[in-house]
Amino acid sequence: MKRIAAVCLMAALHGCAATGVPRTTQPLAWTLGSVEAGAIATQTYRALVQSVEARLPAAAGMPSAILGSDGTPLPCTAETAQRPAAVFDVDETLIWNVGHAYYEARGDAPFDEKSWAAWEREGPAQTVAIPGAKAALDALRAMGVTPVFNTNRSAENAKHTEAALAHTGLGPAVHGETLFLKGDVDGKSGKDGRRAEIVKRFCVLALVGDQNGDFTDSIDNGPAGKRPMAERREIAVARYGAHWGADWFVLPNPLYGGWNNPPMNRDEVVAPDQRWTYKGNH
Amino acid sequence: MKRIAAVCLMAALHGCAATGVPRTTQPLAWTLGSVEAGAIATQTYRALVQSVEARLPAAAGMPSAILGSDGTPLPCTAETAQRPAAVFDVDETLIWNVGHAYYEARGDAPFDEKSWAAWEREGPAQTVAIPGAKAALDALRAMGVTPVFNTNRSAENAKHTEAALAHTGLGPAVHGETLFLKGDVDGKSGKDGRRAEIVKRFCVLALVGDQNGDFTDSIDNGPAGKRPMAERREIAVARYGAHWGADWFVLPNPLYGGWNNPPMNRDEVVAPDQRWTYKGNH
Repeated sequence: MKRIAAVCLMAALHGCAATGVPRTTQPLAWTLGSVEAGAIATQTYRALVQSVEARLPAAAGMPSAILGSDGTPLPCTAETAQRPAAVFDVDETLIWNVGHAYYEARGDAPFDEKSWAAWEREGPAQTVAIPGAKAALDALRAMGVTPVFNTNRSAENAKHTEAALAHTGLGPAVHGETLFLKGDVDGKSGKDGRRAEIVKRFCVLALVGDQNGDFTDSIDNGPAGKRPMAERREIAVARYGAHWGADWFVLPNPLYGGWNNPPMNRDEVVAPDQRWTYKGNH
Repeated sequence: MKRIAAVCLMAALHGCAATGVPRTTQPLAWTLGSVEAGAIATQTYRALVQSVEARLPAAAGMPSAILGSDGTPLPCTAETAQRPAAVFDVDETLIWNVGHAYYEARGDAPFDEKSWAAWEREGPAQTVAIPGAKAALDALRAMGVTPVFNTNRSAENAKHTEAALAHTGLGPAVHGETLFLKGDVDGKSGKDGRRAEIVKRFCVLALVGDQNGDFTDSIDNGPAGKRPMAERREIAVARYGAHWGADWFVLPNPLYGGWNNPPMNRDEVVAPDQRWTYKGNH
């Protein structure tokens, strides 16, 4: 650390990304360690509460935040308008999985799928509420808006996820009523099926997540299968641009995600005409 | 890439952070390559515009977004109320420095401070507006709100930074009027001195940035010097929590920042009682 620190103290702010940090530590340090990531979460939860509050009371015909198969918002009904709700992803949206992120940042060991399943069972008491999340859920409940949780944690571990949400002060979450898990409804990891079920029961005024799939499956998946990343980015703006910060709220998660599956190298991220190299002092 | 992709396609979403990606590529891939980072920028700029619009017209006595030395907002005056403004950092707030980020993601080479100075001069035509930034600045200008730029780019390179902002459609920026650079006012890299000058001229309704220092120098710096990271996070919530998403708006930047200076390893980020290890299949 000493050597790294010395390099960085001499360097301008811009440079420290490039010094000798273990590979997976930088996203961890930013997400869990920075003032800025916590401030962004706080600001996002504030915007969510303001947006929902401004649209109350829920009413029949009001567009929900959940899209139908044609890509337009499904309307609330006279019945669902009695039950306004906001739908939340859980991991890296409401809670930080600090322990598992610590494990994953251990070095170059390959991913072990089983470690996540073990973490779902063992980790509840070590999960941490993301800044602003509890205050937002408390505020929504006080307005009569039900938080509903739609996560790809396993239905087999439902009681552990209920415990994690209780531990962090974000519950109650009741499996089958306000908690929807992978294995529920259509059994798919895509969440559209579960959203279609939720929108039958609630007038959903907002969706909150850290991945595209927390909003609609149609950004990642097109008629011809998985879309290329550039097409996903284009569609997210061209087709769904009006939702971000209006009734869809995104938390930052550079730790993992569909954008990193498969991981991209710098030549895949940056187009040839955008590449630049320092040619020396001049 | 083939081997990495095969590992990841078999893995659940959670895992791909830990596969064999070059060290600095993951923050780059998320920031420039993900749908989510662009969506967060869009949502943040939407919230900014709504917040400023809701507080217009500016009036004498209205609290500005700039703090005095006692930590409370400086009020607008009858004179400054004629000139409502929003103050923006530039790099990784309004524009992505794609070319320099590409250069920095090249591998394990140590940081070269000169490369950034060269980029300031050579890079304007390769900078890219962050999603939502141009629409927000256009909307603010249409409301009569002046965008003012306060950046740690060098005053020596003022014309190049004016060019970068023009290239991305975010200008006009005029050095000494609406563009404040490192070397201006008190010559410091801390921005409080420049903010004190700006607030004499404008009624500043919002601050926008990707680093603490874009809002106040007092998060990073205490009476006894640089604060430990944990204290910065605590103060950001306890003392300034009401600003985030109200009149201070943060863009996500896991590429570089004060949080990474010096870089932290996982044991510095994660407290002992939050650490977890996978103990094998059971």
